[in-house]
Amino acid sequence: MAKKWVYLFAEGNGTMRDLLGGKGAGVAEMTNAGLPVPPGFTITTEACREYYANDKQFPAGMWEQSLEALKKVEQQTGKKFGDAKNPLLVSVRSGAKFSMPGMMDTVLNLGLTPDTLPGMIQLTNNPRFGYDAYRRFIQMFGKIVMGIDAEKFEHALQAKKEAKGVKLDTELTAGDLKEVGEEFKKIFKAETGREFPTDPYEQLRLAINAVFASWGGKRAVDYRNFSKIPHDLGTAVNVQTMVFGNMGSDSGTGVAFTRNPSTGENLLYGEYLTNAQGEDVVAGTRTPQKIAHLHDEMPAVFDQFKANAERMEKHYRDVQDLEFTIERGKLYMLQTRGGKRTAQAAVKIAVDMVNEGLISKEEAVMRVEPVQIEQLLHRRIDPSAKLQVIAKGLNASPGAATGKAIFDPDTAESLAKQGEKVILVRTETSPDDVHGMLGAQGILTARGGATSHAAVVARGLGKPCVSGCESLKIDYENGQFTTGGATVKEGDLISINGSSGEVILGAVPMIEPEMGAELKALLGFADGIRKLGTWANADYPRDARKAREYGAEGIGLCRTEHMFFEAERLPIVQRMILSDDPRVRKESLDKLLPIQKEDFKGIFRAMDGYPVIIRLIDPPLHEFLPSYEELLVEVALLREKGDKPDELAEKEALLKKVAAMREANPMLGLRGIRLGLTRPDITEMQVRAIFGAAIEVTKEGVVAKPEVMIPLTGHFNELRIVRDQLEGVAKEVMDQAGVKIEYKFGTMIEVPRAALTANEIAEYAEFFSFGTNDLTQTTFGYSRDDAEGKFLLEYVQRGILPNNPFQVLDRDGVGELMRIAVTKGKATRPNLEVGICGEHGGDPSSIEFCNSLGLNYVSSSPFRVPIARLAAAQAALTQTERDR
Amino acid sequence: MAKKWVYLFAEGNGTMRDLLGGKGAGVAEMTNAGLPVPPGFTITTEACREYYANDKQFPAGMWEQSLEALKKVEQQTGKKFGDAKNPLLVSVRSGAKFSMPGMMDTVLNLGLTPDTLPGMIQLTNNPRFGYDAYRRFIQMFGKIVMGIDAEKFEHALQAKKEAKGVKLDTELTAGDLKEVGEEFKKIFKAETGREFPTDPYEQLRLAINAVFASWGGKRAVDYRNFSKIPHDLGTAVNVQTMVFGNMGSDSGTGVAFTRNPSTGENLLYGEYLTNAQGEDVVAGTRTPQKIAHLHDEMPAVFDQFKANAERMEKHYRDVQDLEFTIERGKLYMLQTRGGKRTAQAAVKIAVDMVNEGLISKEEAVMRVEPVQIEQLLHRRIDPSAKLQVIAKGLNASPGAATGKAIFDPDTAESLAKQGEKVILVRTETSPDDVHGMLGAQGILTARGGATSHAAVVARGLGKPCVSGCESLKIDYENGQFTTGGATVKEGDLISINGSSGEVILGAVPMIEPEMGAELKALLGFADGIRKLGTWANADYPRDARKAREYGAEGIGLCRTEHMFFEAERLPIVQRMILSDDPRVRKESLDKLLPIQKEDFKGIFRAMDGYPVIIRLIDPPLHEFLPSYEELLVEVALLREKGDKPDELAEKEALLKKVAAMREANPMLGLRGIRLGLTRPDITEMQVRAIFGAAIEVTKEGVVAKPEVMIPLTGHFNELRIVRDQLEGVAKEVMDQAGVKIEYKFGTMIEVPRAALTANEIAEYAEFFSFGTNDLTQTTFGYSRDDAEGKFLLEYVQRGILPNNPFQVLDRDGVGELMRIAVTKGKATRPNLEVGICGEHGGDPSSIEFCNSLGLNYVSSSPFRVPIARLAAAQAALTQTERDR
Repeated sequence: MAKKWVYLFAEGNGTMRDLLGGKGAGVAEMTNAGLPVPPGFTITTEACREYYANDKQFPAGMWEQSLEALKKVEQQTGKKFGDAKNPLLVSVRSGAKFSMPGMMDTVLNLGLTPDTLPGMIQLTNNPRFGYDAYRRFIQMFGKIVMGIDAEKFEHALQAKKEAKGVKLDTELTAGDLKEVGEEFKKIFKAETGREFPTDPYEQLRLAINAVFASWGGKRAVDYRNFSKIPHDLGTAVNVQTMVFGNMGSDSGTGVAFTRNPSTGENLLYGEYLTNAQGEDVVAGTRTPQKIAHLHDEMPAVFDQFKANAERMEKHYRDVQDLEFTIERGKLYMLQTRGGKRTAQAAVKIAVDMVNEGLISKEEAVMRVEPVQIEQLLHRRIDPSAKLQVIAKGLNASPGAATGKAIFDPDTAESLAKQGEKVILVRTETSPDDVHGMLGAQGILTARGGATSHAAVVARGLGKPCVSGCESLKIDYENGQFTTGGATVKEGDLISINGSSGEVILGAVPMIEPEMGAELKALLGFADGIRKLGTWANADYPRDARKAREYGAEGIGLCRTEHMFFEAERLPIVQRMILSDDPRVRKESLDKLLPIQKEDFKGIFRAMDGYPVIIRLIDPPLHEFLPSYEELLVEVALLREKGDKPDELAEKEALLKKVAAMREANPMLGLRGIRLGLTRPDITEMQVRAIFGAAIEVTKEGVVAKPEVMIPLTGHFNELRIVRDQLEGVAKEVMDQAGVKIEYKFGTMIEVPRAALTANEIAEYAEFFSFGTNDLTQTTFGYSRDDAEGKFLLEYVQRGILPNNPFQVLDRDGVGELMRIAVTKGKATRPNLEVGICGEHGGDPSSIEFCNSLGLNYVSSSPFRVPIARLAAAQAALTQTERDR
Repeated sequence: MAKKWVYLFAEGNGTMRDLLGGKGAGVAEMTNAGLPVPPGFTITTEACREYYANDKQFPAGMWEQSLEALKKVEQQTGKKFGDAKNPLLVSVRSGAKFSMPGMMDTVLNLGLTPDTLPGMIQLTNNPRFGYDAYRRFIQMFGKIVMGIDAEKFEHALQAKKEAKGVKLDTELTAGDLKEVGEEFKKIFKAETGREFPTDPYEQLRLAINAVFASWGGKRAVDYRNFSKIPHDLGTAVNVQTMVFGNMGSDSGTGVAFTRNPSTGENLLYGEYLTNAQGEDVVAGTRTPQKIAHLHDEMPAVFDQFKANAERMEKHYRDVQDLEFTIERGKLYMLQTRGGKRTAQAAVKIAVDMVNEGLISKEEAVMRVEPVQIEQLLHRRIDPSAKLQVIAKGLNASPGAATGKAIFDPDTAESLAKQGEKVILVRTETSPDDVHGMLGAQGILTARGGATSHAAVVARGLGKPCVSGCESLKIDYENGQFTTGGATVKEGDLISINGSSGEVILGAVPMIEPEMGAELKALLGFADGIRKLGTWANADYPRDARKAREYGAEGIGLCRTEHMFFEAERLPIVQRMILSDDPRVRKESLDKLLPIQKEDFKGIFRAMDGYPVIIRLIDPPLHEFLPSYEELLVEVALLREKGDKPDELAEKEALLKKVAAMREANPMLGLRGIRLGLTRPDITEMQVRAIFGAAIEVTKEGVVAKPEVMIPLTGHFNELRIVRDQLEGVAKEVMDQAGVKIEYKFGTMIEVPRAALTANEIAEYAEFFSFGTNDLTQTTFGYSRDDAEGKFLLEYVQRGILPNNPFQVLDRDGVGELMRIAVTKGKATRPNLEVGICGEHGGDPSSIEFCNSLGLNYVSSSPFRVPIARLAAAQAALTQTERDR
């Protein structure tokens, strides 16, 4: 007996992708789930392989089995292949294991012949439809099965339209289309040297052969080479009954979701048209009815459809997006697939399904894309709004804002105090602009990357920011900016979308953020599953409170230097930096001490009982000083004018100091622990402030858990010396107060050498925190500020890098260093606490990687903590799956 | 029977360091080699351990064995311990396995008592010597053995001098010294509560005990803790006969080398004094005689000494530095050790000894410090000259030069053309200064590290350079600089020592470099031993010729961009960079093509048959443009004056372009392969030039072996694309000419990611070259220009880093990445060619590491090639030793 080459849909199931291809297995699964699928059969991939092994001949028995299957289909449909009255028409489609462009797509209406066409016309009572279907079939068959240049058919059609003086296909009459069909047959004969087949069996045989042949076609082979799909899989062939929704008022077609894909509400959601084909629903020439209306029009069909929908949702255990056709009162389900949904719907549906007992909490957690959640947590632009986008920059800090475009920080601040909403627009921002940024709704800059001053401060403040919008030409003098063709004058309303980087003319409708009950429930499921702690980066008490609200279990990074930038502190900081007199320096630090202590107290109170990692001063000191370039110009002008010798002398002296502190590559300069070693007075003050604050809040009953983090260690000796010194200070402060605080000392791992020598560094560190922003910069040798504007985005666009490594952790390079650091660090200190506080801490792919490394926590901006909670749970589930 | 605690010198040998300590084993070796060593014995370290195990009691039998040994010494010397006529005096010294500060040093003249002193006076016929020796013994014994504060004795001596109205010890008479001795005994009694011992055996017992006790003293324990020397080794005690060169005209003392330590000439070299002690030779009150004169004065002793010297040189198979004393016609050898020698002598001696059959070539190679060779290859300051050093900067490029201090490059150039020697002195240099640098003898800058423009260009030119001499205040307007107290006016003569970083007032005597026959022979030995290839970095044909002369076997790094900086080319380069018009860019590149081709032809000719690695353009393009800061000031001033609107507009436009190309961290910016991807036209021109040049010289009969090196790869995709493009260009050029050139394509490994993903990168690279300068920068996160001035030197001084990692390769961090890269790279491509072209390529420690990694070659500046040849041979020998 011959091998079984052909499976009726009812004979297969969803697991048989290898044999039946993806499409064949899917339609078999639907059939077996009891859905009224138009009957049909699948010729196996094995048959295709045999075809190639056998010099492109159908394997023995395959054609006979296909004919038998066709007979069964005729029985099921009550139609007959080639029958003049009630003809069975079929579609023929390829279907490999993997979806694959370059293979034969679809031939519809196969079985139409001069004999069967009249029957179809009679059944649909629509000659135009009949002739149109026939000429389309000839065209499709000619092109797809026989490889005739599509241009030839288009040309003939065009000629007909010109002859008729019409422009659109739809303006052609039934008679016209009949003539076109005849014309097409002539083309067919001219091109192939044979008559267009009038025998439906011959049509079928040719179509099946064409599917097999297309597997070996150049485009398919190229695609498989590119996608590394083996060449010996072969493709299946699916032959399925055509059904028609345009056979009268008891026919129709429609699409529906089992639940509302926009809100998640558990109600059938969709629309349909009677006496219509699928393309009519899309074309928009007639207005479709809401699906509920079907209940009135065809109550039995509606009930059947509803039952099918429910069954499919139960079967696939997810919201389904269904396509159906009603042919003369009989319902056919054409397709069912997982329904795309909004963030809000995704969360609600997942939680509802858990409550309904349909899915487990683990499944619910896997059903929502973590990044979708971000949409729910920032004010965002109403997706239905029409926007006049005038420019695009970097999406530097998420959220959206509308306000008057204001070009200087003083005006921004004073307008904000009067209750005006403003967007601060600057070429780039500096510490001198912070007061204006505090007042603004959002920040827009023409220069600077995603770690530029504007971006970092904006994220810290939780304000939307678009940075590095290079097309912006800001004309401060005339109070306007231009971009492309648009000109915005100071005071004009603009909007920015910090999540997309778009700059929009005028005000736009906004949707306020919400942390609804369903989201809370979903994150609750996630909390029960994840292994990674989810901490937050927060520099101010208000950020810490926000972080707690979003579920943060600790502060992974509190940057102390932002506190230095605040307007009333900066002059003290500058005096401290610039003075050569140790007394002046000490005096300045003494002034800063109580201020920093207050900051820390606020954070400790907000994080009562949770750890707070405080990073000691990191940036080069010259960042706190006035701009070298501005001073240079000022001095040159003062010299030229020569009328203010005192001011000149003063500025010259300042210039000299600023010049002496300048660095060619500040990113790689005197910063981090290097500052701690060369200017120990600053870090000592900071440690005094940290422990002083911890002691004072302890007396209020707050549990403070400071962890002192030393940035940029590269050699264990650095850490040994600095830790010795600072732990001494900490002990002195605690001894003086007679209060013991639970604390840790640790370091950031942010230069490759620290990772490579982590075994030595762990001798002096109780915790590691991966500063993956800097680690990415040093591992790639990229300055983020320079790279993103100058070549990195081009790299991603050209596929040189799979992602922007500052957004998605580079596993092969940076990740490899992390792996080395974790392994070596834990070899020295098995209970080493390891986390990540770079921006990757809020990126799901990076979180997955951190989970696989066995880190203790990820720390992200407060707004991303919910994302991290969900992503961490997904990572834990994926890992469990992988380990199985 | 008791254990053997005591060894006569004749009973031990050089291998018994564990038991006899270093000193004891050494003196035993000398004795056994047949040298007339003053007899003595060693008490073992085991005795010391037993002493500590036994509550600080001498182990049973030790004292008795010591007395027995003493008897044998008496027999050997014909003297007697405590004898009034011919007393045996001894020295007592500690001697652990490792030389160790903090332990008891030496007690001399032990055995002097009121009974034996007269005998000594008689024997020496020198009462002053006798009394002086006695008071010194009391003082030494009191201080070292009994722990009396040395101040007490000094105080009494001072009082005597004051009483006598004299200033110097030597002005005191025999009678004065006798009284001092009595005074010292009183102090001894007052401090210890006992009389100064008059029994020589008690003196000996106390001294031995003091040696043992000093092993457990605080300073010794601290030192062992610091140096990680185990505490349970114990120390030995050496007791040795004193001999005296001041016992009349048949006595004397001297020092000599077996060969001339300055020239290496094979002749005894040294001096002596008759009737004198060792300290008299040093004191300089009498003029010593040349050693040859001893032949006339005491022919028998001279012959004996000469024979001893020859025997010792043969025994130790190296030049010996000998100390001897003649006591009443009898020669004693006090010490022999390897003789320190100059670079020149070291080379000559090593080669001579091979020729004499005394040592092997391998040994000869191990006898010369590679860095010593450098002295022989640069003009250097006569080491005997007295210098007025006025400042110190970085030793940025080796060699020395004298010339007029000139502050601007134009003057420097024109004076040089008139035959004047000038030193170009600048705050820092830029491409605009190169013509002045070419004319100057040397370069001195106030700012910039060892990779600053000045340093890199100077090394390339082989000119001495002192950079980053921060104390220099240059006053261009008044044509002078000051440093410390010194002021140098333009035109004053100064000298610089680029090997030490010194700046010297006035002209200084110089020694010209030489590559003598002996050095060539030694390097020939090295070439036969080493496994590493020694290549050179050379940017110009003249450097390549120099490299060949010094034995380079290839060019490891030819930097193409230096060629762009030359005066006549820079304007073309700038136009090419600044133009937005592709035609102008192409036109500029077309002009540069033949110029670059000529450069390469010269290099190929010089390296006929040897590989030449040419690195494509690496620095950010803005390095070729005018200074942003200068333009900023120019524009501000032009605006202020408002009288030159055209010039203002032009400068504004230029400023805008320069501003757009500025980078926050150019080291991590748009450079290297990133330029190759974003501005492929430049690298394409370079590849055309390389292959064009190779083809043209091939027609001359030259064998050109270009290897195209792409800098700064971080991801294999970068290299894949660039290599594809450039190899296409190369093939096109070769096809057009119909000439096939043997070539390779490869990349630098200079960012950590490249090392970590070397397996992927090796798919597209036939060779790797470690750019360890940049790799050190990125691995540590150090910008070299910033770090060296701002914290790195402090780090090295404070011991935070063991070395400046830009000079000596950091094995734990950078080296670990290299190890990973070699392992992963060779896993993909077993025949991968791997080398190093960073500055470490010329550093012996780094070369040793490269040898251990199995690299193919090291590449250094031409002047360091001989160093590399020697260091590579030493590395191979050390490795073989280790592998054994």
